[in-house]
Amino acid sequence: MNKLINDTYLCAALSEPVERTPVWMMRQAGRYLPEYRAIREQAGDFMSLCKNPQLACEVTLQPLERYPLDAAILFSDILTIPDAMGLGLYFKEGEGPCFEHPVRTAADVAKLPVPNPSDTLSYVMDAVSVIRKELNNRVPLIGFSGSPWTLATYMVEGCSSKDYRRIKGMMFSEPRTLHKLLDKLADSVIAYLNAQVESGAQALMIFDTWGGVLTERDYKEFSLSYMQKIVSGITTVAEGRKVPVTLFTKNGGQWLDAMAETGCDCLGVDWTMDLSKARAMVGDKVALQGNMDPSILYGSPERIKQEVATILESYGKGTGHVFNLGHGIHQFVDPENAGVFINAVHELSPKYHT
Amino acid sequence: MNKLINDTYLCAALSEPVERTPVWMMRQAGRYLPEYRAIREQAGDFMSLCKNPQLACEVTLQPLERYPLDAAILFSDILTIPDAMGLGLYFKEGEGPCFEHPVRTAADVAKLPVPNPSDTLSYVMDAVSVIRKELNNRVPLIGFSGSPWTLATYMVEGCSSKDYRRIKGMMFSEPRTLHKLLDKLADSVIAYLNAQVESGAQALMIFDTWGGVLTERDYKEFSLSYMQKIVSGITTVAEGRKVPVTLFTKNGGQWLDAMAETGCDCLGVDWTMDLSKARAMVGDKVALQGNMDPSILYGSPERIKQEVATILESYGKGTGHVFNLGHGIHQFVDPENAGVFINAVHELSPKYHT
Repeated sequence: MNKLINDTYLCAALSEPVERTPVWMMRQAGRYLPEYRAIREQAGDFMSLCKNPQLACEVTLQPLERYPLDAAILFSDILTIPDAMGLGLYFKEGEGPCFEHPVRTAADVAKLPVPNPSDTLSYVMDAVSVIRKELNNRVPLIGFSGSPWTLATYMVEGCSSKDYRRIKGMMFSEPRTLHKLLDKLADSVIAYLNAQVESGAQALMIFDTWGGVLTERDYKEFSLSYMQKIVSGITTVAEGRKVPVTLFTKNGGQWLDAMAETGCDCLGVDWTMDLSKARAMVGDKVALQGNMDPSILYGSPERIKQEVATILESYGKGTGHVFNLGHGIHQFVDPENAGVFINAVHELSPKYHT
Repeated sequence: MNKLINDTYLCAALSEPVERTPVWMMRQAGRYLPEYRAIREQAGDFMSLCKNPQLACEVTLQPLERYPLDAAILFSDILTIPDAMGLGLYFKEGEGPCFEHPVRTAADVAKLPVPNPSDTLSYVMDAVSVIRKELNNRVPLIGFSGSPWTLATYMVEGCSSKDYRRIKGMMFSEPRTLHKLLDKLADSVIAYLNAQVESGAQALMIFDTWGGVLTERDYKEFSLSYMQKIVSGITTVAEGRKVPVTLFTKNGGQWLDAMAETGCDCLGVDWTMDLSKARAMVGDKVALQGNMDPSILYGSPERIKQEVATILESYGKGTGHVFNLGHGIHQFVDPENAGVFINAVHELSPKYHT
């Protein structure tokens, strides 16, 4: 492969010096873009879009055509692994993702396969290869997976849940069954992420959407320890370069110190935690990604620029900051405002890197 | 009024010595109790139950008949104030509370009245008086209100919201309008809580359900400062005794130090924050209330007792701990398990108070 033209994202995520703060947006390929909605309509449903490598590539690259983003992220779903395990993923209008065959018992867990990425998940690897080729080394490509705890939450609940009654029921009543499920998921995620790197992903991110509904004790035992296992098991170098790994637990700000001990390179931070506090918690162990409230993008261009300035200042001088939203961009945001945000990071950040 | 028979809740919330840790449950009068469901059916809808002082008293006392709880809490809704402002509160099946006339503009805010508690909210004061009389000094009665930010969230969104698009839109685009609304709500809450104390409430709690969706900066400016105003404006002594005030921001664990500066007596803590960390953050400035994950009540009696022991140990020795769940009790919990929880706190806590 040729040399990356813009590698600021990789450098910042590895706490190496940069000239300005890199920026990308979670869910940057998404419904707020009219060109995305057009392709989505063409594909039919959401999973058909994920499973079509050419179309997945097209939507992955759409935001890069509009904005000078410093990274691309594979367009896919966090629930591809349980889908490949045969649980029958489908999307219920207004309810989000559901499974036809939820996992409820020790027998259910025992019969789950560890999916072979080059078999039932080959469409993801094909998408990674195609995107990487089309990106043509402009910016790095981030691969990703859901965390074992987050995948297990969907698999056990069956649909989105308000009180996590079933997964917590299993956690409190049959912790060993849950540990077996999480361990199998960790093995599956390792194989899945390694295959993504082999297909061309240059960085990895693990999304722990639901770790933040646990106590600190349960978070460490049922979510963090399996992310730790993944960090220890995945490929760390590709094409002669370190592959930065980012962990993101939504509502996990109070546990950043423990997360920094996993050996990952970067931690995602949501907007409820001030970055100066977050940086004080983790020291120079890891880089930080975040953390603008996505709702700011409903505000005026002036308000957006002001918030970018405040967040750059809260992180302070030096490398180790990847600018991002604290969660995915909302579907009703005006794409113009996303551009204001991206440009503001590039304009206002150089003085923090002199 | 006669002397309270069991005042451990008041003492612990004021960080005065106790012989064992007091305990009550948020939403202890609720759908998990068959006797509650019977009264609720008799009343018709939820607001008819709130607006009938005799029935509100009956459901308030139901959990005290079953369990040796150390406090009663007024049965009411957090949205009585906006309802009294004329916004037309109603409950949409599966969606929670909604308003017929949401607040969207500066003109909407300007025409909102500050409700007179003895007029449009007299049903609440009548309920407080009746409950207090029926309680007959067994345990103290806690009055409560929603926080200005939380009330404003419902009033501006109109219904429950996933992304808080409208209230945050107002916050970012028209902060002065939002400040006017919050200030009017703070005045209304002060009058409302003072009237509850005058009617017999012996302690107060402010529920800030949605403060945790803000950044630290926005939380301090738009939620905490108005709770501060309320703490400074409410009656602090009734019947010759201090009225403890508890603030609770769900998902606000990272801001406990700032909350402790308001002059309140006690802070509610959800289960994502370890109590030893919380105690280290606030020192001896305030007592702490919490923080068992309500989902533990789906577990076995042994698991429940084990969790109670872990939480007592995480708080450690000395007064200043009011045991509670980290959020309201879930509707599908077996009432027997709630009893196991309450009894475990009473059995296991004396050794922390010698």
